[in-house]
Amino acid sequence: MENKFVAVIEYDGGAYHGWQLQKNLPTIQGAIETALHKITGGLVRVHGAGRTDAGVHALGQVAHFTLVWNHEPARLQKALNALLPNDTAIVSLSLANFGFHARHSAKNKTYVYSILNSSNPSPIRRNFTWRIPRRLDTEAMNAAARELLGTHDFATFGSPTGGTPSTVRQILKTRCEQCNDLITFTITGTGFLKYMVRSIVGTLVEVGIGKKSPTDFPNILESKDRSMAGATAPAHGLCLHSVEYTYEDKDSGFKGIPF
Amino acid sequence: MENKFVAVIEYDGGAYHGWQLQKNLPTIQGAIETALHKITGGLVRVHGAGRTDAGVHALGQVAHFTLVWNHEPARLQKALNALLPNDTAIVSLSLANFGFHARHSAKNKTYVYSILNSSNPSPIRRNFTWRIPRRLDTEAMNAAARELLGTHDFATFGSPTGGTPSTVRQILKTRCEQCNDLITFTITGTGFLKYMVRSIVGTLVEVGIGKKSPTDFPNILESKDRSMAGATAPAHGLCLHSVEYTYEDKDSGFKGIPF
Repeated sequence: MENKFVAVIEYDGGAYHGWQLQKNLPTIQGAIETALHKITGGLVRVHGAGRTDAGVHALGQVAHFTLVWNHEPARLQKALNALLPNDTAIVSLSLANFGFHARHSAKNKTYVYSILNSSNPSPIRRNFTWRIPRRLDTEAMNAAARELLGTHDFATFGSPTGGTPSTVRQILKTRCEQCNDLITFTITGTGFLKYMVRSIVGTLVEVGIGKKSPTDFPNILESKDRSMAGATAPAHGLCLHSVEYTYEDKDSGFKGIPF
Repeated sequence: MENKFVAVIEYDGGAYHGWQLQKNLPTIQGAIETALHKITGGLVRVHGAGRTDAGVHALGQVAHFTLVWNHEPARLQKALNALLPNDTAIVSLSLANFGFHARHSAKNKTYVYSILNSSNPSPIRRNFTWRIPRRLDTEAMNAAARELLGTHDFATFGSPTGGTPSTVRQILKTRCEQCNDLITFTITGTGFLKYMVRSIVGTLVEVGIGKKSPTDFPNILESKDRSMAGATAPAHGLCLHSVEYTYEDKDSGFKGIPF
């Protein structure tokens, strides 16, 4: 009998051309399908909750796939982790019911963008932070980010990803926190356009250095003009933190994200 | 006029054969001397507070060097950081008085060893943690580590480094802390033998899994027998966190470690 599995995946995206399968280019989906192929001998298609761009990391990407497996999920997880390159790991694997779909069942996604606000480089954090030497005003960035809350047309900040051409998305939470020289920007939404988080971060940084004001943000948002946004922040500061599902999904086999 | 500088250095040791200069091998000392050579055109010898082994990281290695510099130290720091590879950075640079010596003036050193206590790999933390799948008893490890406090002959845990053949060292603080799946072991001492921290960590892990008991620790320490210690923990979990100097040194030019 075939089983449907839901996996939570952590990856260091530095060496990948993003999540989504591409011919002759290393991708995370490709790495997992290759590992599954080694185990099953067949093609097992892996469906992610969403694409991440080249160089973007994940602590909690979610994906589902279907295969015949007559042992404990833990044994499949162990086998996959032994076969995957060390920059990708299955941090949780459970059985899901057959109605579950990593992308369609997803309720929200949370991204975290990390900024190193320091005049000095930090070698140990270099692969996971965007360094900005100029002092950033976190409070102003927070005020600007709050303008994003709710349902808006986010065409200023990104382009639609496949499927529907709509650029309307709902943002549920934004938070900009500073701890010593590290600023983390957390954003939760029902969905995101391509480059949306990185474009928002680039624009927030312009607020942080005083080039834009938080009160400019509603106009920037309403302009639906990409040229009104700041530069797209680099990929390596971005991490897909988690994908949230409804309680009903959890109830019907999915054991939830372990963080 | 020649100036003496004291630098605080952060590095990701993964690509290096340790701190100390070695012919035809990449070392951190070598990288800094190369950068200084590009700036001055001459040989500037860099004196570290202590050697770190191949693969060991540092947040706060300290070194001094002497050169003629007629500008602000900040300008030299910027020039060095622009020339250094991105896995090494000068995070602080100040003038020191001529009596200051990175190694001889050092009072204490603090190392932090990071253990990922999880059955799953963590790609994002893989280069800075030693993963141990078996559940570790942090309290037992703490109790064992407390037996190291004070002045002892640490021959069980390491061999002398150049200079004096003595294996007597003084340990001032040990602490084993758990935060979710991350266990950090912090140890402060007046000095450390070669492999001493990693050998202590390897032995503490044997306590953590129940193979040894905290009450065995005084005997292990007194045995002065390397075979009584656990396996040497891998280098990539270890980080030289900071080097502490006396107030007098700070008073006479050295501005202290900025963390």
